[in-house]
Amino acid sequence: MTIMAKILLLHGPNLNLLGQRETDIYGDLSLDAINSAAKKQVNNADFELETFQSNSESELVNAIQQAKANKVSLIVINPAAYTHTSVAMRDALLAVEIPFIEVHLSNPHRREPFRHHSYFSDIAEAVVAGFGADSYRYALDAAIKTITKKT
Amino acid sequence: MTIMAKILLLHGPNLNLLGQRETDIYGDLSLDAINSAAKKQVNNADFELETFQSNSESELVNAIQQAKANKVSLIVINPAAYTHTSVAMRDALLAVEIPFIEVHLSNPHRREPFRHHSYFSDIAEAVVAGFGADSYRYALDAAIKTITKKT
Amino acid sequence: MTIMAKILLLHGPNLNLLGQRETDIYGDLSLDAINSAAKKQVNNADFELETFQSNSESELVNAIQQAKANKVSLIVINPAAYTHTSVAMRDALLAVEIPFIEVHLSNPHRREPFRHHSYFSDIAEAVVAGFGADSYRYALDAAIKTITKKT
Amino acid sequence: MTIMAKILLLHGPNLNLLGQRETDIYGDLSLDAINSAAKKQVNNADFELETFQSNSESELVNAIQQAKANKVSLIVINPAAYTHTSVAMRDALLAVEIPFIEVHLSNPHRREPFRHHSYFSDIAEAVVAGFGADSYRYALDAAIKTITKKT
Amino acid sequence: MTIMAKILLLHGPNLNLLGQRETDIYGDLSLDAINSAAKKQVNNADFELETFQSNSESELVNAIQQAKANKVSLIVINPAAYTHTSVAMRDALLAVEIPFIEVHLSNPHRREPFRHHSYFSDIAEAVVAGFGADSYRYALDAAIKTITKKT
Amino acid sequence: MTIMAKILLLHGPNLNLLGQRETDIYGDLSLDAINSAAKKQVNNADFELETFQSNSESELVNAIQQAKANKVSLIVINPAAYTHTSVAMRDALLAVEIPFIEVHLSNPHRREPFRHHSYFSDIAEAVVAGFGADSYRYALDAAIKTITKKT
Amino acid sequence: MTIMAKILLLHGPNLNLLGQRETDIYGDLSLDAINSAAKKQVNNADFELETFQSNSESELVNAIQQAKANKVSLIVINPAAYTHTSVAMRDALLAVEIPFIEVHLSNPHRREPFRHHSYFSDIAEAVVAGFGADSYRYALDAAIKTITKKT
Amino acid sequence: MTIMAKILLLHGPNLNLLGQRETDIYGDLSLDAINSAAKKQVNNADFELETFQSNSESELVNAIQQAKANKVSLIVINPAAYTHTSVAMRDALLAVEIPFIEVHLSNPHRREPFRHHSYFSDIAEAVVAGFGADSYRYALDAAIKTITKKT
Amino acid sequence: MTIMAKILLLHGPNLNLLGQRETDIYGDLSLDAINSAAKKQVNNADFELETFQSNSESELVNAIQQAKANKVSLIVINPAAYTHTSVAMRDALLAVEIPFIEVHLSNPHRREPFRHHSYFSDIAEAVVAGFGADSYRYALDAAIKTITKKT
Amino acid sequence: MTIMAKILLLHGPNLNLLGQRETDIYGDLSLDAINSAAKKQVNNADFELETFQSNSESELVNAIQQAKANKVSLIVINPAAYTHTSVAMRDALLAVEIPFIEVHLSNPHRREPFRHHSYFSDIAEAVVAGFGADSYRYALDAAIKTITKKT
Amino acid sequence: MTIMAKILLLHGPNLNLLGQRETDIYGDLSLDAINSAAKKQVNNADFELETFQSNSESELVNAIQQAKANKVSLIVINPAAYTHTSVAMRDALLAVEIPFIEVHLSNPHRREPFRHHSYFSDIAEAVVAGFGADSYRYALDAAIKTITKKT
Amino acid sequence: MTIMAKILLLHGPNLNLLGQRETDIYGDLSLDAINSAAKKQVNNADFELETFQSNSESELVNAIQQAKANKVSLIVINPAAYTHTSVAMRDALLAVEIPFIEVHLSNPHRREPFRHHSYFSDIAEAVVAGFGADSYRYALDAAIKTITKKT
Repeated sequence: MTIMAKILLLHGPNLNLLGQRETDIYGDLSLDAINSAAKKQVNNADFELETFQSNSESELVNAIQQAKANKVSLIVINPAAYTHTSVAMRDALLAVEIPFIEVHLSNPHRREPFRHHSYFSDIAEAVVAGFGADSYRYALDAAIKTITKKT
Repeated sequence: MTIMAKILLLHGPNLNLLGQRETDIYGDLSLDAINSAAKKQVNNADFELETFQSNSESELVNAIQQAKANKVSLIVINPAAYTHTSVAMRDALLAVEIPFIEVHLSNPHRREPFRHHSYFSDIAEAVVAGFGADSYRYALDAAIKTITKKT
Repeated sequence: MTIMAKILLLHGPNLNLLGQRETDIYGDLSLDAINSAAKKQVNNADFELETFQSNSESELVNAIQQAKANKVSLIVINPAAYTHTSVAMRDALLAVEIPFIEVHLSNPHRREPFRHHSYFSDIAEAVVAGFGADSYRYALDAAIKTITKKT
Repeated sequence: MTIMAKILLLHGPNLNLLGQRETDIYGDLSLDAINSAAKKQVNNADFELETFQSNSESELVNAIQQAKANKVSLIVINPAAYTHTSVAMRDALLAVEIPFIEVHLSNPHRREPFRHHSYFSDIAEAVVAGFGADSYRYALDAAIKTITKKT
Repeated sequence: MTIMAKILLLHGPNLNLLGQRETDIYGDLSLDAINSAAKKQVNNADFELETFQSNSESELVNAIQQAKANKVSLIVINPAAYTHTSVAMRDALLAVEIPFIEVHLSNPHRREPFRHHSYFSDIAEAVVAGFGADSYRYALDAAIKTITKKT
Repeated sequence: MTIMAKILLLHGPNLNLLGQRETDIYGDLSLDAINSAAKKQVNNADFELETFQSNSESELVNAIQQAKANKVSLIVINPAAYTHTSVAMRDALLAVEIPFIEVHLSNPHRREPFRHHSYFSDIAEAVVAGFGADSYRYALDAAIKTITKKT
Repeated sequence: MTIMAKILLLHGPNLNLLGQRETDIYGDLSLDAINSAAKKQVNNADFELETFQSNSESELVNAIQQAKANKVSLIVINPAAYTHTSVAMRDALLAVEIPFIEVHLSNPHRREPFRHHSYFSDIAEAVVAGFGADSYRYALDAAIKTITKKT
Repeated sequence: MTIMAKILLLHGPNLNLLGQRETDIYGDLSLDAINSAAKKQVNNADFELETFQSNSESELVNAIQQAKANKVSLIVINPAAYTHTSVAMRDALLAVEIPFIEVHLSNPHRREPFRHHSYFSDIAEAVVAGFGADSYRYALDAAIKTITKKT
Repeated sequence: MTIMAKILLLHGPNLNLLGQRETDIYGDLSLDAINSAAKKQVNNADFELETFQSNSESELVNAIQQAKANKVSLIVINPAAYTHTSVAMRDALLAVEIPFIEVHLSNPHRREPFRHHSYFSDIAEAVVAGFGADSYRYALDAAIKTITKKT
Repeated sequence: MTIMAKILLLHGPNLNLLGQRETDIYGDLSLDAINSAAKKQVNNADFELETFQSNSESELVNAIQQAKANKVSLIVINPAAYTHTSVAMRDALLAVEIPFIEVHLSNPHRREPFRHHSYFSDIAEAVVAGFGADSYRYALDAAIKTITKKT
Repeated sequence: MTIMAKILLLHGPNLNLLGQRETDIYGDLSLDAINSAAKKQVNNADFELETFQSNSESELVNAIQQAKANKVSLIVINPAAYTHTSVAMRDALLAVEIPFIEVHLSNPHRREPFRHHSYFSDIAEAVVAGFGADSYRYALDAAIKTITKKT
Repeated sequence: MTIMAKILLLHGPNLNLLGQRETDIYGDLSLDAINSAAKKQVNNADFELETFQSNSESELVNAIQQAKANKVSLIVINPAAYTHTSVAMRDALLAVEIPFIEVHLSNPHRREPFRHHSYFSDIAEAVVAGFGADSYRYALDAAIKTITKKT
């Protein structure tokens, strides 16, 4: 019996509010809607998707650490505000050595200068930003493709 | 039956120690004393005050998000150490679109250079620093006045 | 016969135009109205208030120097544009050794980057910004309280 | 008779070498292969695709200017080395006011620091980098979707 | 009876020495000669010209403030040394909301690096530098044309 | 038989679009209209005017080099986007040793910070910016005057 | 009856993974092994050792605050990723006024530039880095010695 | 009949307070005492000394301009706070082309970083700082010697 | 039959003017003279030399790309003004993976600060600057020696 | 007959004064006392210790070079003032390829900013600072352990 | 029998060439002449003067250390090139705790930017620069006066 | 009888180790071999060569000073580590006014960023780097040629 490869989709702080506020910047889809679509997309490829959102840096660190135990093959992560401040999440990603793709709903280069620096981009496989919910879709598509190639 | 307008008073990390240590910098009032005085001040104006302190960035983010559901009209916040590091709290404040006033007990410009930058000041309604416990009193006075004008 | 303690209220350049222009930034009260309210507030506490506005850096320096001779107990100052450029006024305040509170009508952190640096904040007792005319009221309240405690 | 909406796919300097050198960084597909796949993808959506590669900054400026006359609806551009140096191409994109998506085969944040600045990202609709040839596929998918919504 | 539109020509510190020293940099015309030519030029267009030179930052601030009362339509200003240091004059120009043109006799970019920054250029209508006395002539020509268009 | 002195008027990238786009920034005159007016102005002074626009840095370098052979007395140049990036054009101007005047239609100090640096200003005779098409008129007026003085 | 002096050994985020990953950088000892050795070392000196690891900044802040109540004499801390980002932990250490020693398993100066700045070093008694598990042993040796001297 | 050579001794803002405050930094001599000693020193050398103090930048500019008319041979100047902010005084000194010596009572390099930059040092003949009132004595000695050599 | 190894000698913008202008900086040899000498030097070593000069960045990129097809063993390049601005030429050199030597006639460190940075030096085999035409001679000597060793 | 492994203990400038001055910063042990203790510690482990102090950068360079000939296995070095200025000593350590440990008696991060940069830390095995004479003891302990492991 | 107080006059690298080269910058007096005049000046005040010049940083460090043993009361030092590079000499001066005066023959602020920073000024009693050999005379005068006051 | 012109070849710190270590960076020729080849090359041109290597900054300063007395016509110098730190050697070269050529065996731009700045390049006649021992050969060739031209 074979085990389905797993992808982990991580959402950083304030993304639980998606679809409720600042819809001009972040779009009008709720996080649930995004997660549902993501699951469908991944399941269609015969892989498993886990999703997790937290406002807590340490819970996100824990989730990244747990991914190793869970035999996650690839992480798709939107670190949101922690993009610019979390060395702890960067270190967790370095520690588990699982390849990951960095995702942003909006284009951070159109916003404040402190949003132009990411603690993740230089160790990410790829970066996608500004496509709204499709940023996730493209990242997951790439994740599926990467795993498929390896298996 | 009318509902009383609500103000949220948020205290960042280490402010639970108020009145116990470094009283030359932060004064000798405990956080409880400050919160009691604040409640009295706000109740006198026929508004309601909620107070919350946490050492946890994510609990503070949660509290800000919850403020929307709680129909809080204005936030008075002393972000303490997170003044200089928390984009997540900044993003939460941007997301809930509740006006807020930034408060500091001491004057951060008299301290280390990294305390001269705030992730909150450029989106705050106003900033008050260095008046000890009166920093809160002035901020709440302004909060009351602002809400009174609107209602 | 006792002498009433004195507070000096200093207004920097262009504040003579208050209430006439850019009322969205600075409010619609005239400088006279602010000074009158300030006098009433201070007199109620049985202290004396002197007020002075000038567009001239040297007249403001002179006023600060004169404050010593006049036995001023505390200075409340809105240095306006000189906030960002006047070492001479800073030096005068250091020389007379009278404690002072820095006041701004609007919140300078919401404006151009060069307004984020102040030659006064690191030697001020406290800083209050963004409350409109109430910025003065809070500063004077603190001034009154400080003097009351000492006397 | 209706006119098919057009997308312009622009490739910057040295991308004519794709598939021939540094395949570990840029993948082993030739530019022709990428363009063919792109055309198929766009035609399937019943839109037209024009492609153009040049090592010349001015020819790329001309192509952007020409896009207006050609009634191009959206530009997908990989500015390659000009990402970091061409204000002229930025100005051309600003002048024609056609929305565009910035594409990179590899992830520039993994390379030299001067590659971390782009003259395009802050005016782009979206940015996608590091997915190899799929960077183009995602960008074109988004382009098709955008035009479809408008028409 | 119609009132003639007014232009104000302001000269900053040390410009009273024009024609007497450093004629290789600033030309050999005296300030009087420049003002006379300017008056003739403006009067020919049936407008009125006021001129004012001062070495005092506050007198220049006053002159700018007074311009509002005097119903000046446009200011032509050579801030000289205050170009690089006066936030007070900048604030006065912002306060009176009269459009202005920044003029320099010599080209400041050929001189010390601190002369490359101006507190005026980013809020000026236009900047003209390096044409000697003709810098004024061009600025006044533009001023006349602007007012003519409006009236 | 005497030869008429020549002035060369150079236009950088995207200026061929003048009058067609972003007319709020650049005005509504076409480049042809500007060139025609310029020719009339120069011919009236009994000098000859050559004009050249290119989106290509190297064609502009060539034009500057050719100016020497053509015995051009003075160059009026709007380097547009190349203002901020072209050392090659700077070097060409240094090489031919023909004095030149730098012209901008709009005021670059009102735009992005990278537009505040020019590779030309510190070697230009003079700089004129923000007068729309009149920027050219003033520069040509100065050019005519300079040549007249010499001849 | 005398009370044994206490030392607190704090471990920051991702140190729970010690010995499992990146053993070339961090060594192959598990955190449990390090804690056991540490306890033996401290008990041998007739002092008590508490140990605590967390991925959560606020739990580490809490642990530092609690150390005061627990009458901890000295803290040995490896802040890991929070070395570079946590003002909250710095503030907690300043607040409890317990001397502390900063420890790193590897030498952060051999890694990315952002790891060269520490929010702890300038207020630490001492700093030890790069000796693997022995970094802890040396720090505890110094801690024991310091307490022994005082008692 | 020969005319005595003149030296001008200029004192910047707040130096009128000398001997009254901050005597630990600036010494306990009054400005009058310093001026008297200076006059005696200069008269002994059969030269004339003029002295002037002002808190006003423009009065100091005027005094420098007037020095030319007064046939002053050398200026000794303590610009005090204007050391760090006055381009206008620098320009006046450049304009009158009278050599000058920069004097400071205390050593500015022992104070705040913004006091480490002077707008005068790079155009001064010499700089002397930190000798208290003797800083003036040395500067005047050098001034006398310089003039003596020339005459 | 053996094929002669080839060296490519590339000259950047404005070097076509060599020997005609600024001979104090660049020497009085024409580019033709330099190329002739270079050919003789290389032919004497039984290798072939191709030379190319262009004012166009893209033609230089093309020439570098073409070098691969032409089986060029080593490139000697004087990027002139493009030294400081061309990432495209840098990328072309990285793409073709032909070792190259950077040459300058004059010593750029004696000129403007922006000439102190080169986009080529950190990937060049060697750099030679300031020997006039001999800079080429030394670079070619090294090129010949390198190829001779390999063959 | 086996040869004892050797450790070299190097002391930089002014460390000959140890125990005589600034004992609050550097402790009251003399350099001789430190060297004696060090010898005892190393001999106990059956290794040999050489010690050398110099105020001369070149003598320290020589000592490092000599270490290779002397078959030194590991260097423990307190570069003192040369920590912040000596590339020559860095180069010597790189050249001899002997692993070394950087030691400081006090914690340089508590002192002037220029002491925060070390030319040694990024190539050292480990860094220990602020433990007074024990800094040496820990470094030597690690040195002994390292050599023991290898032999 | 009383012992004469001693002053040490230290000269840094290349000052042995005084009077032989670059006399336009450094004057035409030889170092011997300066030392002779200095001795006469100090002996006249009944103090002793030692003088020492070296091109060697370590010999200068040694001389400073020796000054303590020699019971030197005050050091007058011209660190020359080491002004900008020697932390070792700074540390020696801090270690011996002998007050010192920093002297420069020429004014370093008129030279290259790297000469604007001194490792000595912020710990010097006073600084004198630009008076040629008189810089020494003033410094020694101050030294004599300081010692006289103490004795 | 004519005197042979002399060239001085100076080698900075650690170059005595040439050929023994890091041969991948610095080549496998010993310093003796380089000096021998250099002597032969210079003698063939009928000039004299002196060579000197030292790890001591002051001995190198002395050697430069001595060059004047020795009537050296030109210096070829590889300052090695002192390239980046020695103002004293720079000053010595400025003092003796002997033209010099800067030489590096390897290309410093391929190494750490602090090696990209040289205290010598902006005053050197020419710079040659990265050709291994041939760097010396080219520099000496240029030296010979320069002297030949003059004599």
